[in-house]
Amino acid sequence: MLFVVLVEPETPGNIGSVARVMKNFGVRQLLLVNPKCSHLDGEAYGRAMHARDILKVATVAKDFSSLKKFDYVIGTTAALGSDYNVLRSPITPDQLTLQLQRFKGSGKGERAKIALVFGREGTGLTSREIGSCDLVVTIPASKKYRALNISHAVAIVLYELFRSSKSAKLTSHIPLASRHEKKVAMSMVSEILAGMDFATGSKKETRRLVWQRLINKSFLTRREMYALLGFLRKTIKVIKK
Amino acid sequence: MLFVVLVEPETPGNIGSVARVMKNFGVRQLLLVNPKCSHLDGEAYGRAMHARDILKVATVAKDFSSLKKFDYVIGTTAALGSDYNVLRSPITPDQLTLQLQRFKGSGKGERAKIALVFGREGTGLTSREIGSCDLVVTIPASKKYRALNISHAVAIVLYELFRSSKSAKLTSHIPLASRHEKKVAMSMVSEILAGMDFATGSKKETRRLVWQRLINKSFLTRREMYALLGFLRKTIKVIKK
Repeated sequence: MLFVVLVEPETPGNIGSVARVMKNFGVRQLLLVNPKCSHLDGEAYGRAMHARDILKVATVAKDFSSLKKFDYVIGTTAALGSDYNVLRSPITPDQLTLQLQRFKGSGKGERAKIALVFGREGTGLTSREIGSCDLVVTIPASKKYRALNISHAVAIVLYELFRSSKSAKLTSHIPLASRHEKKVAMSMVSEILAGMDFATGSKKETRRLVWQRLINKSFLTRREMYALLGFLRKTIKVIKK
Repeated sequence: MLFVVLVEPETPGNIGSVARVMKNFGVRQLLLVNPKCSHLDGEAYGRAMHARDILKVATVAKDFSSLKKFDYVIGTTAALGSDYNVLRSPITPDQLTLQLQRFKGSGKGERAKIALVFGREGTGLTSREIGSCDLVVTIPASKKYRALNISHAVAIVLYELFRSSKSAKLTSHIPLASRHEKKVAMSMVSEILAGMDFATGSKKETRRLVWQRLINKSFLTRREMYALLGFLRKTIKVIKK
């Protein structure tokens, strides 16, 4: 079970933004460690939009050491390479995703409690906190300005985790054209080209190649492919007249 | 050259957040289309943090049709269309990255202008605006709450583009087909369709749309486009015989 943990957050608006993006990516458990804002105000609820339910059930912990109850504590940092106290070199969000997938596959992972920990808005996590994490994640960013807004960092890490999960299959209800359909389209293209005069054979071959690329590169959906096949069929008919 | 375009943004704070994450990922050109906030206030500059320079040089356009000056207009939407709406069949941010990688390294003179367009905070882009985009990107998200905050959406798309930028440098300098060439191709397609009999006008329109998707989704190189134009020219000739 995945928890998003914010360490000493100061700005209610940021907490609301984090709640919203958690709900966007199907994560429900929010834990605030020693929050520096006295309460979640209108700004927090305003920015949470339709994720007010997540704010309402957010829990609070006294200090960082409370995270010992988690099976895995995953820290995040923007300070890449500036701190050599860190024993583990940070991994990227997509590497984290691979790690967690392997972990989940073990069976044990289903019940494991995982904390995804984000530091203070201004200063992030301390070296000591980083040192007590099982894993450290860094989001690759421009050398000129590495520090992401906290809710942006949460958005990117949760997006990575979400897109690799089963529910992320965007195209699951939009079937793509199959290999067979692409082959049918190409054989129709060959038929059309055979009915045309070209100065040289190599020119004809170039035309065939561009069609192959067009069909392979464009990731057509099945429906789009059917429309294309309809066009090609019609062209063949016209040519054969 | 990549531009982040916000259509009718209402909240200065969101614009500031977008500027910050742009700088995090090394994107500098911000274009506001008909902004609904009269000016960029303290909230905008406060949230931009160290990206105030991006806000200062942000440009403003009167309406959506100004985007015609871009070679590629890439829209974003949370409203996932069904397969039956050809115009709205979207790709994911990582698929977009694969497509854009191919010409990130092209020579300076050939460099295409790309607009990455994000809609209104409340209602996104209209169907008409989506319809005039070359490509549509959707961020996979929970069915229970698909609508991301605008700056989160920008963060995720720019993160995807940034993290692949290393491998992008490895790709060769290949000029892409220009907007003008795409337009020429589409007018030739229209000419071909005009010479064909269809049971209904809507069927003809579907054929035209699938061609538009084919040409826009496949990011043909200039050389590939010339080969395609050759094919279309030949088809017109055959039809007119």
